[in-house]
Amino acid sequence: MTTTIPLVHRRQAVRTSMRSAGIDLLLIGPSAGFRYFAGRNAILTERFVALAIGADGRDVIFSPRLQAPLYETMAGVELRIWDETEDPLAAVAAKARAAGVRSIAVNAEFWSGFLLQLAVHLPDVSLKNGAALIEAPRMVKGPEEIAALAAAAAKIDAVWAEFVATTDSMVGHTELELRARIDAMMRAQGFSEVTWVDVGAGPNGASSLHHGSDHVIAAGEPVVFDFAGCYEGYYGDICRVAVSDEPHPDYVALYEIVREAQELAFRAIRPGVAAGAIDAAGREHIAAHGFGPLFTHRLGHGIGLAAHEAPYIVASNDTPLEVGMTFSNEPGVYVPGRWGVRIEDIVVVAQDGATRLTQSPRDLVRFG
Amino acid sequence: MTTTIPLVHRRQAVRTSMRSAGIDLLLIGPSAGFRYFAGRNAILTERFVALAIGADGRDVIFSPRLQAPLYETMAGVELRIWDETEDPLAAVAAKARAAGVRSIAVNAEFWSGFLLQLAVHLPDVSLKNGAALIEAPRMVKGPEEIAALAAAAAKIDAVWAEFVATTDSMVGHTELELRARIDAMMRAQGFSEVTWVDVGAGPNGASSLHHGSDHVIAAGEPVVFDFAGCYEGYYGDICRVAVSDEPHPDYVALYEIVREAQELAFRAIRPGVAAGAIDAAGREHIAAHGFGPLFTHRLGHGIGLAAHEAPYIVASNDTPLEVGMTFSNEPGVYVPGRWGVRIEDIVVVAQDGATRLTQSPRDLVRFG
Repeated sequence: MTTTIPLVHRRQAVRTSMRSAGIDLLLIGPSAGFRYFAGRNAILTERFVALAIGADGRDVIFSPRLQAPLYETMAGVELRIWDETEDPLAAVAAKARAAGVRSIAVNAEFWSGFLLQLAVHLPDVSLKNGAALIEAPRMVKGPEEIAALAAAAAKIDAVWAEFVATTDSMVGHTELELRARIDAMMRAQGFSEVTWVDVGAGPNGASSLHHGSDHVIAAGEPVVFDFAGCYEGYYGDICRVAVSDEPHPDYVALYEIVREAQELAFRAIRPGVAAGAIDAAGREHIAAHGFGPLFTHRLGHGIGLAAHEAPYIVASNDTPLEVGMTFSNEPGVYVPGRWGVRIEDIVVVAQDGATRLTQSPRDLVRFG
Repeated sequence: MTTTIPLVHRRQAVRTSMRSAGIDLLLIGPSAGFRYFAGRNAILTERFVALAIGADGRDVIFSPRLQAPLYETMAGVELRIWDETEDPLAAVAAKARAAGVRSIAVNAEFWSGFLLQLAVHLPDVSLKNGAALIEAPRMVKGPEEIAALAAAAAKIDAVWAEFVATTDSMVGHTELELRARIDAMMRAQGFSEVTWVDVGAGPNGASSLHHGSDHVIAAGEPVVFDFAGCYEGYYGDICRVAVSDEPHPDYVALYEIVREAQELAFRAIRPGVAAGAIDAAGREHIAAHGFGPLFTHRLGHGIGLAAHEAPYIVASNDTPLEVGMTFSNEPGVYVPGRWGVRIEDIVVVAQDGATRLTQSPRDLVRFG
């Protein structure tokens, strides 16, 4: 992850929010939040690692000795190394006590085993969910982050363009063969992580649990491609559909409804509108055509240092959109036993609407 | 994961431990513990999934609607599906209240965000760390599990044997080239997950943070190979060292010390001995040769449905070994800026000692 991100400013900003929320210490284990505030990855294992951001202005990294070299170069952060036979939560507790900490918040993904161990050491300290403190600044991307997400999206587009350009027909090939081709193209484009490549033909395209199989693709069978990866620290994600030979007219009609829904959701995006209203904008169009019960998931998810993050574009989310928020717009309709449609782009909220970061054509791709 | 494992018996057995520990409900999110008690994988994302084992004999799976097909075939377990706009922890709380639950234990990896949300719904319920309840039965493997671990170890051995047989010289090749070859061999052998392949030549072999690079391997440079993967649900893991041309006599001497330490640790294994004593058996030999400070990690880790699990073979662990426990035996010495040695096997505790599951020759491998 190359970065010129002002990490010190990020930590300084969250201290203000911590004071408002009455949180003395924000403890963040290996996660996208850690990457956001520490500017580097942490290794998620049974060996405890955390960045502690103090409302008093003092920050500490707790690291097992073996991993300490990862953190030795961090400016303005104390490194507290723990040894193999030590209880690292006792070390956290000692620091917290010395600083007079009375409330600690942790990231959503923080392991409960560590939290409950901390509670044993600090019975009088209040332990809280720090998800909102961490999500709030991460939801709104700065110019460098948007540039990084645009770069990841451009790489995703390049993979899809290459796949389309180098495929004559899918007929006779298996889903797993196509999946392996896209995986290899992603790695060649420089993705450090291929997060998923899901390929579902015909009825398989109707299940979000289907990732690819030995199913041999037939003529006329629509194939749903959904793939995501991490490029220089930020995630890209897309979903498109292709078909070999003539698609069924019913499918073409359904595809058009989903494409219109995606466009209507896209046009509904502007600062101040609730996330849930964007979901509604896409969903109402699909429901109006009688497919409401077959659009079985939320419209989208935030994206950035994680593939899935806030804001979630779901009916129950009344978070108002802000300029710089980035998320997926991916309505879908799934007809069990028959086929599925999903069209996904990554978008960024702008002053007067939204911009698509993925820009692959949204037509149903047709091979010979 | 093919399995004839008596899942119902596993859940029945843990109920007895729960009653002794005063736990009414054991809540297990996506993790190896989930695989142990549910016999299948769960998907770890922001969408809450958990298996709830009740001391009263009633078990429930909480699943997002999209993932419900994964759990529909589970015998004897109620499926509680939650919808995209629902709070799944409210659903857990409602079930717990209806059952009169007063204490809930969770797995170590359970997300704190979910735990703290549960605490909001159930302010009068005691929340505890369920790690010991889950680890205790998992530490001692039954015959089918040992057979599965032996199969994974045999596949690991087969990969190493193939690598050795198909390599003439490593000189002029990069670490990443060798890593890619082992990765491909693991996939060809049927590993569903390549958990890690670390290749470190010369000074790179002295850092556990080094996973592979463009470093070109030179004559006489020892190369440390550590690779692990999941085969039919269970993990295999090994570490061996190879050198092209003549190794430095100092290296050969150091290698011999580590090999002896690994053998001494192996011979110390028997039922009733504390895990920490096995660490000591290997460590004392290395320390006696003056390399104690350069053996910077614990001797080993348990292995099974997870690559790292209890029992950890570390000085502070006084858990007595039992027949059927499986763990790695991997002493190492790391000379900064020069080279590293580590020799790792997977072993199983037997009635009168231990058996190695990985059986690759432990000599320093020499290529031309």
